[in-house]
Amino acid sequence: MAASSSPAISQSLVGRAISHHGSADRADPAGALPGFRLSNLAGLSLESSSLRTARRMHPVLNRASPRATVRAASVETLEKTGTSMVEKSVNTIRFLAIDAVEKANSGHPGLPMGCAPMGHILYDEVMRYNPKNPYWFNRDRFVLSAGHGCMLQYALMHLAGYDSVKEDDLKSFRQWGSKTPGHPENFETPGVEVTTGPLGQGIANAVGLALAEKHLAARYNKPDVEIVDHYTYAILGDGCQMEGIANEACSLAAHWGLGKLIAFYDDNHISIDGDTEIAFTESVDTRFEGLGWHVIWVKNGNTGYDEIRAAIEEAKSVKDKPTLIKVTTTIGYGSPNKANSYSIHGSALGVKEVEATRQNLGWPFEPFHVPKDVKSHWGRHVPQGAALEAEWNAKFAEYEKKYKEEAAELKSLISGVFPAGWEKALPSYTPESPADATRNLSQQCLNALAKVLPGLLGGSADLASSNMTLLKMFGNFQKDTPQERNLRFGVREHGMGAICNGIALHTPGLIPYCATFFVFTDYMRAAMRISALCEAGVIYVMTHDSIGLGEDGPTHQPIEHLASFRAMPNILMLRPADGNETAGAYKVAVVNRKRPSVLALSRQKLAQLPGTSIEGVEKGGYIISDNASGNNPELILIGTGSELEIAAKAADELRKEGKKVRVVSLVSWELFDEQSDAYKESVLPAAVSARVSIEAGTTFGWAKIIGSKGKAIGIDRFGASAPAGRIYKEFGLTVENVIAVAKSL
Amino acid sequence: MAASSSPAISQSLVGRAISHHGSADRADPAGALPGFRLSNLAGLSLESSSLRTARRMHPVLNRASPRATVRAASVETLEKTGTSMVEKSVNTIRFLAIDAVEKANSGHPGLPMGCAPMGHILYDEVMRYNPKNPYWFNRDRFVLSAGHGCMLQYALMHLAGYDSVKEDDLKSFRQWGSKTPGHPENFETPGVEVTTGPLGQGIANAVGLALAEKHLAARYNKPDVEIVDHYTYAILGDGCQMEGIANEACSLAAHWGLGKLIAFYDDNHISIDGDTEIAFTESVDTRFEGLGWHVIWVKNGNTGYDEIRAAIEEAKSVKDKPTLIKVTTTIGYGSPNKANSYSIHGSALGVKEVEATRQNLGWPFEPFHVPKDVKSHWGRHVPQGAALEAEWNAKFAEYEKKYKEEAAELKSLISGVFPAGWEKALPSYTPESPADATRNLSQQCLNALAKVLPGLLGGSADLASSNMTLLKMFGNFQKDTPQERNLRFGVREHGMGAICNGIALHTPGLIPYCATFFVFTDYMRAAMRISALCEAGVIYVMTHDSIGLGEDGPTHQPIEHLASFRAMPNILMLRPADGNETAGAYKVAVVNRKRPSVLALSRQKLAQLPGTSIEGVEKGGYIISDNASGNNPELILIGTGSELEIAAKAADELRKEGKKVRVVSLVSWELFDEQSDAYKESVLPAAVSARVSIEAGTTFGWAKIIGSKGKAIGIDRFGASAPAGRIYKEFGLTVENVIAVAKSL
Repeated sequence: MAASSSPAISQSLVGRAISHHGSADRADPAGALPGFRLSNLAGLSLESSSLRTARRMHPVLNRASPRATVRAASVETLEKTGTSMVEKSVNTIRFLAIDAVEKANSGHPGLPMGCAPMGHILYDEVMRYNPKNPYWFNRDRFVLSAGHGCMLQYALMHLAGYDSVKEDDLKSFRQWGSKTPGHPENFETPGVEVTTGPLGQGIANAVGLALAEKHLAARYNKPDVEIVDHYTYAILGDGCQMEGIANEACSLAAHWGLGKLIAFYDDNHISIDGDTEIAFTESVDTRFEGLGWHVIWVKNGNTGYDEIRAAIEEAKSVKDKPTLIKVTTTIGYGSPNKANSYSIHGSALGVKEVEATRQNLGWPFEPFHVPKDVKSHWGRHVPQGAALEAEWNAKFAEYEKKYKEEAAELKSLISGVFPAGWEKALPSYTPESPADATRNLSQQCLNALAKVLPGLLGGSADLASSNMTLLKMFGNFQKDTPQERNLRFGVREHGMGAICNGIALHTPGLIPYCATFFVFTDYMRAAMRISALCEAGVIYVMTHDSIGLGEDGPTHQPIEHLASFRAMPNILMLRPADGNETAGAYKVAVVNRKRPSVLALSRQKLAQLPGTSIEGVEKGGYIISDNASGNNPELILIGTGSELEIAAKAADELRKEGKKVRVVSLVSWELFDEQSDAYKESVLPAAVSARVSIEAGTTFGWAKIIGSKGKAIGIDRFGASAPAGRIYKEFGLTVENVIAVAKSL
Repeated sequence: MAASSSPAISQSLVGRAISHHGSADRADPAGALPGFRLSNLAGLSLESSSLRTARRMHPVLNRASPRATVRAASVETLEKTGTSMVEKSVNTIRFLAIDAVEKANSGHPGLPMGCAPMGHILYDEVMRYNPKNPYWFNRDRFVLSAGHGCMLQYALMHLAGYDSVKEDDLKSFRQWGSKTPGHPENFETPGVEVTTGPLGQGIANAVGLALAEKHLAARYNKPDVEIVDHYTYAILGDGCQMEGIANEACSLAAHWGLGKLIAFYDDNHISIDGDTEIAFTESVDTRFEGLGWHVIWVKNGNTGYDEIRAAIEEAKSVKDKPTLIKVTTTIGYGSPNKANSYSIHGSALGVKEVEATRQNLGWPFEPFHVPKDVKSHWGRHVPQGAALEAEWNAKFAEYEKKYKEEAAELKSLISGVFPAGWEKALPSYTPESPADATRNLSQQCLNALAKVLPGLLGGSADLASSNMTLLKMFGNFQKDTPQERNLRFGVREHGMGAICNGIALHTPGLIPYCATFFVFTDYMRAAMRISALCEAGVIYVMTHDSIGLGEDGPTHQPIEHLASFRAMPNILMLRPADGNETAGAYKVAVVNRKRPSVLALSRQKLAQLPGTSIEGVEKGGYIISDNASGNNPELILIGTGSELEIAAKAADELRKEGKKVRVVSLVSWELFDEQSDAYKESVLPAAVSARVSIEAGTTFGWAKIIGSKGKAIGIDRFGASAPAGRIYKEFGLTVENVIAVAKSL
């Protein structure tokens, strides 16, 4: 029944809140709140006259400081908004942040205090979400790109009724095993969409979320049913604005016309090193206009509630451009002695200043207290959220009746359940199949998979014709063709990776892939690490994976890159050797939706080898040939990718001389590590110490595989500009050298 | 004598052209030029009327192509410039590029063909340099940020008379051991200033070069003698413009008011994936105005010589801002069938199209030919360059007479010879010295060294107060205080690294350092790899080097980073354990002017350990304590950085139980690797297989050190948000665990 199917989707999604960090004890149980002396506030009542008196004494402007020009009207009284509940809610947010940071004696109170007004308006007035099902598909997405200010988001989620942020969670802010870590982490805290903190990542994630919405809306909405329809909101700070990744992603957001992306720029003029005047004097407004955004300036972000509301309305009315709302705020608003200074950016206020801030804002409550009327005001979000979801479910039921096929496909995307037998689409090869570059074999896999996996979409950082990543049956995702599945990222590797993280975390069945030369993972490594950390199953299609690319020379030739990803947690480094292994690598990459995969692929042609298989790849390491019996070869040759062929040829030669030689493909060290000890022993028996590895990259890390008596053939210097064959020869990556080294053992 | 001292400087600099890639055979000797059929061009004379006829037939506009809108007036005849020599020189440049790419059957002819006019004007009319001494201190700097177009620069250097690019070098373009690799590499080709190719790096290097000039000019120029006075020119393409690093560096360039930086933006609307319309539709002009640059648009970059000249004049007249000259060109200008398309970006034209281009541009010469009048025209640069240098030498002699002290200091910077005994300034510590974080000890070293090393300057990416990198006796390098030595990079790690590469390569005695949290090396890894490749001795001051940073959590906690740099060629990864080791790390970093150093430093306090020393650090690994004799301990505990203390304490406990235990500090694996086998055996004797390592990072790579019987204590997962002590305990990085593991061996 259609009516029952939609809740089932929601249900299955709630189950996603599984974290690889597991659960652990909550530290600091409620009640232990040292350091607060509230006695002198006890007499204050909550009547607005007292509040007004307190506010009139706001001393920010009275401070004498040569640099501390107050740019926003931080002392305007709040009366003119006439909404005392808003003021009270905003102060609740401020003090939850202050109290949590104070208790942890660690954290960043400044941003939550300054951004509480826009945060309040977003979560209380604007955004559509269901606190009891943070994974409801059609929710508005929110990204705190300035992730250090996470207490803002935790406070808002707490007020809104998310189960992940209860009072105890606020009290265990930044403690072992808590749901409220030092920066927002989607894998820890249901309701947090992405993982931010490293600056600039969040706004790029938000671009990915907005792209996903625009793409799915174009594919599944019908003239009579808008089944995909939400906004993506982000808050970014000065730090995010300085990062190159933000400029990359924002350039693309405008190019793609992501009109439902609304970003708030917390323009507070303070970063860790002090006033942004010392390093950041560009006109952000003009730059964003150049990028193609709609730009609005809210001059009084501290108390200008109506201005903020109007800006959001205006942003929504601009359909063809993303909007940047520059909101000028005072960092640490409300703190009499620390507002508008770097000292409130990343440290607890301290007992004395907390007290002064309570006085100043007229806040008589004990730490972590949410006033009853504020609680009751926010209480509507639980029933409202449930109603929003129920309404959408009903709409979906209607949709399903009219558009059976589309509904089924969309449901599979939302649930992340792939069509049965999808893996049968993967091509297979025999040793007689023509030799080919694994980048070309990769394109065969991508095109085969795109037919059976409706969520596969992606592209390259301006190297589509080199990376071989075009899906031939689809056009380009562009402003006016958002239903298409080829993404054109331009030369913006870092933005590309982070945008793909956003796509992957938008909908479980979306499988974003992205591509560049393997060496340029250096440009996007921060985003790739976040993929691994935030459990985004992005597929990184990395071609030109060694000196085998030849003439472009050392700036383009990866050396240390395989090792550098093998050392990174929760990411799969795969280096297939031929067609079957490339297909296997894609199978692994698709199956692993909670860890990203990096596929290192060759520019040069490689033979299809006997013995390779998809099943072998799934084990990470396996025997492709052996002329010994009883698990007792005289020699084991171990190769990966393009060098497996060299190992195989060397084995052929040595076998001609009567040697018992095993050849092992170690296509993914991580997967091999996960196999049983018995399996590992069956591939690399401890008793066989004569082992030679060959790989066109650093030998760093190979000691673990070859043992202290083995030898690693590799490259521990930078590459060179010359035809590939010549470099291979000069660097000793040859059949002859493998044989010579093997004989030396 | 003053008069003789300046040439001595030049002399010493010529000796810098040493490459770690060494020399090798030149491939493809002159004469072997297969594939060219010039017979049908033989009848063409060089008279200008023939040239004109050929040009009038220029067919670019006749092509029918839906996307190929010609944006520059690529068919205007050249007559109006009235400078046939310029035209001929420009075509010489084009055909040298065409011919070299054709012979190599690899390379990028499109940019050189389109940028030949601006290239000609720069090298023939504008820039001040001495071809016979590419290291003359006061030369104008040129950076080809769009490094794939390197044949442009090689052709220009060849015409100008640089010894590094003779005809044979052009003929061995992209071949093993040549001086003309696939992208510009300063360590291969004297006269190339920096190493480019990875897009965006070059323009950021250029910002560093211009910063160095402004800084040195402010420190050493006198009202009556401008001893430092040159421009920095760069050419960047659409690809560079898309990269975030370029935006970061260009934002800083304007902030710093680098008025002598003049960047040409080759606006050709083509990148590898085709028309830039598919991914790059922002207004670059507006963005640069927002960044604070002066922007000029040359609409006809193909033949508008006077417009280009006028733009350069205008750029020079704007003293307080860097200038972007957007030059609209046609990629592959002159090629009748491939101009203005991606097909000419990165492939040889092919015999047929080369011939068609010769016809089209009226070029009757054999490959690699430089017409006699062109040769003679360019011939003046050798004597002119010598005269420029001689003039400057004379000026320096005058300067030296009047300003003895400044001259001596500047000379030491130019020669890269440090004041004798500089290393004595490094602090030393005893076990009784107070415990301290190595980031604080690092600041002591930096401040001590800044007093004795006039070329030490640097700063942080908005974390100065966390990285502890301020030089207390200096102010901030700013637009109006360029003589100061604290650089404020803002939150722009990638730009920071590349800017430091430019500073390091500007003048041998400049020692740039830069800082952020260790985990954020991920943001700047591409620039750090270029440091290593281009032999720029940048000091990377990387604090918060492990889970020891605590509450900020896994986004901020490095895990795989130590391994990832140990795997990178030509870079030193140093992780000092206390004050003496921090001093040692700085000594190593300063001495190594041809390889960068990465210092991993703690946020948390560490004890001053008995047995640590500067000398020990210089060897990379050494014994800090041992109660065994005869190089035969029962157990070796190996630690680095903050975990060395844990190893030392565990050893103390085990010794109480009568065990013979050695403790080894492995502060730099690279330096230890370079020691003699005898030394290494004296530290880690092969016979002792009971080895336990402890390091708060991945165990990846440690197998080589501990052998197959040893055990590595480390962290092979992401970190967590909690107080540092708690995470250490939860992850087993404790004295108790070391003892337990040791006993299990």
